[in-house]
Amino acid sequence: MSEFRFFHPVEVRYGDLDPQGHLNNAKYLTYFETARINYFVHLGLFTPGHSFMDIGVILADARVTFHAPVEYGTPVKVGVRTSRLGNKSMTVEQNIVHAETGEVLASGQVILVAFDYHTNKTLRVPDVMREKISTFEGLEVQQV
Amino acid sequence: MSEFRFFHPVEVRYGDLDPQGHLNNAKYLTYFETARINYFVHLGLFTPGHSFMDIGVILADARVTFHAPVEYGTPVKVGVRTSRLGNKSMTVEQNIVHAETGEVLASGQVILVAFDYHTNKTLRVPDVMREKISTFEGLEVQQV
Amino acid sequence: MSEFRFFHPVEVRYGDLDPQGHLNNAKYLTYFETARINYFVHLGLFTPGHSFMDIGVILADARVTFHAPVEYGTPVKVGVRTSRLGNKSMTVEQNIVHAETGEVLASGQVILVAFDYHTNKTLRVPDVMREKISTFEGLEVQQV
Amino acid sequence: MSEFRFFHPVEVRYGDLDPQGHLNNAKYLTYFETARINYFVHLGLFTPGHSFMDIGVILADARVTFHAPVEYGTPVKVGVRTSRLGNKSMTVEQNIVHAETGEVLASGQVILVAFDYHTNKTLRVPDVMREKISTFEGLEVQQV
Repeated sequence: MSEFRFFHPVEVRYGDLDPQGHLNNAKYLTYFETARINYFVHLGLFTPGHSFMDIGVILADARVTFHAPVEYGTPVKVGVRTSRLGNKSMTVEQNIVHAETGEVLASGQVILVAFDYHTNKTLRVPDVMREKISTFEGLEVQQV
Repeated sequence: MSEFRFFHPVEVRYGDLDPQGHLNNAKYLTYFETARINYFVHLGLFTPGHSFMDIGVILADARVTFHAPVEYGTPVKVGVRTSRLGNKSMTVEQNIVHAETGEVLASGQVILVAFDYHTNKTLRVPDVMREKISTFEGLEVQQV
Repeated sequence: MSEFRFFHPVEVRYGDLDPQGHLNNAKYLTYFETARINYFVHLGLFTPGHSFMDIGVILADARVTFHAPVEYGTPVKVGVRTSRLGNKSMTVEQNIVHAETGEVLASGQVILVAFDYHTNKTLRVPDVMREKISTFEGLEVQQV
Repeated sequence: MSEFRFFHPVEVRYGDLDPQGHLNNAKYLTYFETARINYFVHLGLFTPGHSFMDIGVILADARVTFHAPVEYGTPVKVGVRTSRLGNKSMTVEQNIVHAETGEVLASGQVILVAFDYHTNKTLRVPDVMREKISTFEGLEVQQV
């Protein structure tokens, strides 16, 4: 239930570190984002080369809890798991895990809202997205 | 009570934007961080030129709620307000405000934990930090 | 002749620094870019809120020479000066200067090529750009 | 002679892109830097987990020539090759190559100066660095 079925490896770059020698806090959201887009690509919901306007979601909320510092050379993978598929929004759990020890270095959550970039309006989560995600995650779709 | 007594102006850089033409979500934490350090400088709790190890806090949690996109050319200021001073940790409210209209474009919260970078241990929030912040914010210090 | 007529102040952010505690080398190009766009805005060649596709130039080459480290708290301004207006390209000199002492902390140069983002083709530097820049810089326009 | 013996793969992150949908120019230096540190690690000249102060070089100059835009989803690898080992400095050629087609998307060069971060002084390129690099690159060491 709380298992992540998708992880994306991310290389810690020197330029991601700050004067305290650790991964800068803002970069956690960058790592989450990178993994999240790869998750959409993996599910067939986004194709590289297409406009990012086609991805059809905006970020409404993001949260990170920092458990242990991430250092240069730490092999990390970033988990993505949709835990809730609502009418217009969805909740995505994310974490950053030491790829060898499995230690959870950070955990977090983002809320995405379905959005039409052409009309600038929120909309119902499209059926294709709803189906692919619920199938992948083994998720009950909420009736609203 | 919910008034911010400290704001720091931040210039939206072209390099802060992403392919959707708006401020990238990770940069909100960068803006929060920039304003937060200026807040510590303003309160006399950090002096530029000194080691950032001396700042004596680590980030335990960060949260952002996105209300409206931030665009290139939008004049923004970033609010910082300590709302809770605990024994070992403190809660800092933050927001990003349109500097002219006052519209709140994003709001958030971080939790800082007092930390000694030399011993790598958490510690009690130092008295000098406790006093300067509670005086500035008109805050009751929690007895723990 | 070698005088910069345009400077844009940039705040050194904590997030711009790297583990050696100085401005990370990649950020110099970010500072150059930020100042350069402000230069175009200042000359009436770009209006914030419009598509960046309208700016009509692409970067062909960038160079930075690092003279002295930039630290947190250093007040810097970034110079922009077009030194050559060719048929399809232009050379822009840039530097990063200590805003109080005038010390040149870095200097550099970029080459911009006029580009139509709609047809994805290079083109002749538009007359309006040619005129505004040559007037501002007191520059002879090269006949090609 | 002009062959690169070391390449490091870099994933293009969404957060590396700018409003024109391409890899932002400043990120090229980030990609160069990431590959360069991996090159030092590969040659046994730097060990992750150690202080970056121990790396013993500072950047004196950096240059990038942009040949073709780098897009999201483009598989890239970044080349590193020391082409000159002087008394106190060295020249490192770098490029960004499409990992499948071999197309050179960008090329550049940085100049590194041997530096003691403890005394803040330049110094002679250490023998161990000189030997490992010249052996790896099949390079004649310049007598100065």
